[in-house]
Amino acid sequence: MKLAEDLLAGNRRALAKAITVVENGTEGKKELLAKIYPHTGNAYVVGITGSPGAGKSSLVDRLTEHIRKHYGLTVGIIAVDPTSPFSGGALLGDRIRMQDHVLDEGVFIRSMGTRGSLGGLSRATKEVIKVLDASGMDIILVETVGVGQSELDIMNAADTTVVVLTPGAGDIIQTLKAGIMEIADVFAVNKADLEGADRTVTEVESMLELDKERDWTPPVVPVISLHNKGLDQLYQAILKHKEYLTESGQLAVHRQQRLKSEVVEVVLEQLKQKITREFKESGNFEETLEKVVKREIDPYQASEVILGALIR
Amino acid sequence: MKLAEDLLAGNRRALAKAITVVENGTEGKKELLAKIYPHTGNAYVVGITGSPGAGKSSLVDRLTEHIRKHYGLTVGIIAVDPTSPFSGGALLGDRIRMQDHVLDEGVFIRSMGTRGSLGGLSRATKEVIKVLDASGMDIILVETVGVGQSELDIMNAADTTVVVLTPGAGDIIQTLKAGIMEIADVFAVNKADLEGADRTVTEVESMLELDKERDWTPPVVPVISLHNKGLDQLYQAILKHKEYLTESGQLAVHRQQRLKSEVVEVVLEQLKQKITREFKESGNFEETLEKVVKREIDPYQASEVILGALIR
Repeated sequence: MKLAEDLLAGNRRALAKAITVVENGTEGKKELLAKIYPHTGNAYVVGITGSPGAGKSSLVDRLTEHIRKHYGLTVGIIAVDPTSPFSGGALLGDRIRMQDHVLDEGVFIRSMGTRGSLGGLSRATKEVIKVLDASGMDIILVETVGVGQSELDIMNAADTTVVVLTPGAGDIIQTLKAGIMEIADVFAVNKADLEGADRTVTEVESMLELDKERDWTPPVVPVISLHNKGLDQLYQAILKHKEYLTESGQLAVHRQQRLKSEVVEVVLEQLKQKITREFKESGNFEETLEKVVKREIDPYQASEVILGALIR
Repeated sequence: MKLAEDLLAGNRRALAKAITVVENGTEGKKELLAKIYPHTGNAYVVGITGSPGAGKSSLVDRLTEHIRKHYGLTVGIIAVDPTSPFSGGALLGDRIRMQDHVLDEGVFIRSMGTRGSLGGLSRATKEVIKVLDASGMDIILVETVGVGQSELDIMNAADTTVVVLTPGAGDIIQTLKAGIMEIADVFAVNKADLEGADRTVTEVESMLELDKERDWTPPVVPVISLHNKGLDQLYQAILKHKEYLTESGQLAVHRQQRLKSEVVEVVLEQLKQKITREFKESGNFEETLEKVVKREIDPYQASEVILGALIR
């Protein structure tokens, strides 16, 4: 398969095309994924999330610049917005962002929205991660815009999760509410030149102290991404977490667990397609469905009947 | 089953308890749903959505008051917040809202967050709708906080969907982006005393004119919910849409389609539980999963193997 070969050879155009194939579920997607899969698992995946307005995009851009300049590693960026229907850099903002890195072959940015992601945005994100990984990116930054359930699912694909906060209590409460505090491996307090930044750092640290049971205590790093301050501290905190995961053996364990959950996800997605087809095309189960419509049986009872017929 | 009987008799405490049972998936959930199902399908379900800050909560409250006062119908309110982990009125805001209606037996408010909704928030919302329906509520208002994919799924359960906008272009663009314009049956332009309200109404109307193919043109109703202005116009617009659906036969067709999709949803949810159990407990497919971990086969190839063993 030429697309897979070109991708594995590091061809940028093939990379862009492969992402589109994967995202849209175009023909050849399964073959492509099968071909590249043996070449994945080398990139380190960092998730970056936090409330809207925390300055995640500019932080990701500056961090990327920093990593490129000082460490020479290649960086793939996936900007995921579950509230946007647009994918593939259709938004003006992405074009502007792209321009900062357009001359740098070591950076690839892709934005993803809900349109065209059959099987869900989090499924699609995991597959795009694989494509970037196989193309040879050293680090993959996955940035999500909001703090809802979809973001939590997406962050589940990351080795290290950075939660971005800004000074002020509102952000902490919002983040707590969304269950995002629990998934943080590193905290970045962005816009740390604003009033109250020190207090925010202290507050997060004392909150973390309450939870004595963890082996890894997430560091809280003040950052001013607009002035390029704190970027190396943030990158070092990520590396430290990576080291912790590697040495404790958790990196391998987590990645194995994630792969296994991914198989479950794919099985369910395939089943969903099969069942939808079965219902729509073959007219099977029509009788059972009619009983539900007539309120003779309820959806759970109908489900029992259908599962009985479907499953070995 | 006493809970079902009490609920069907209109007991409020049973109603609260039944919602908790359904939401938490406590034992007895399936029996409860089966028992009440024949008594559902009488309530009219209105979805109310729009961007954050559009004033949906106060609009829902005032509309409820209006319907109670002038039409004497009972109203169930489900306030769904996909970004909140809290359910069951744990938020201060809900308690305050409850107080407005606390003496009115004809109103029941329940807030729902992501915690404790196994099978997803949209699944849980549909089941809570059934509980309120069976308890005898005439109208069920389902209010969602944001504009993401979960909100779209939730709105799918409504007979009539009201999209709430506020004056100013930002809201229209935000709503367009989220694909919410397409699901609107009625538009409410709230805070219509703000500058630019007339223009917003005109803009939405001209946008709708571009789309000549529809049989139903969503009316655009200016509302000032804080001053109780436009509430009856909004309610009449909803009733007009209901009449249109009823007379064209679409209400019955849509409801049947929704029930059928619900069966598919339940089947998938049950399959997911079964498969997760199968993977975790029986240790089946362990060999296949190991091959994925060793990158000998990819998740799609593993899925083929597992489906072959699982499905008739």
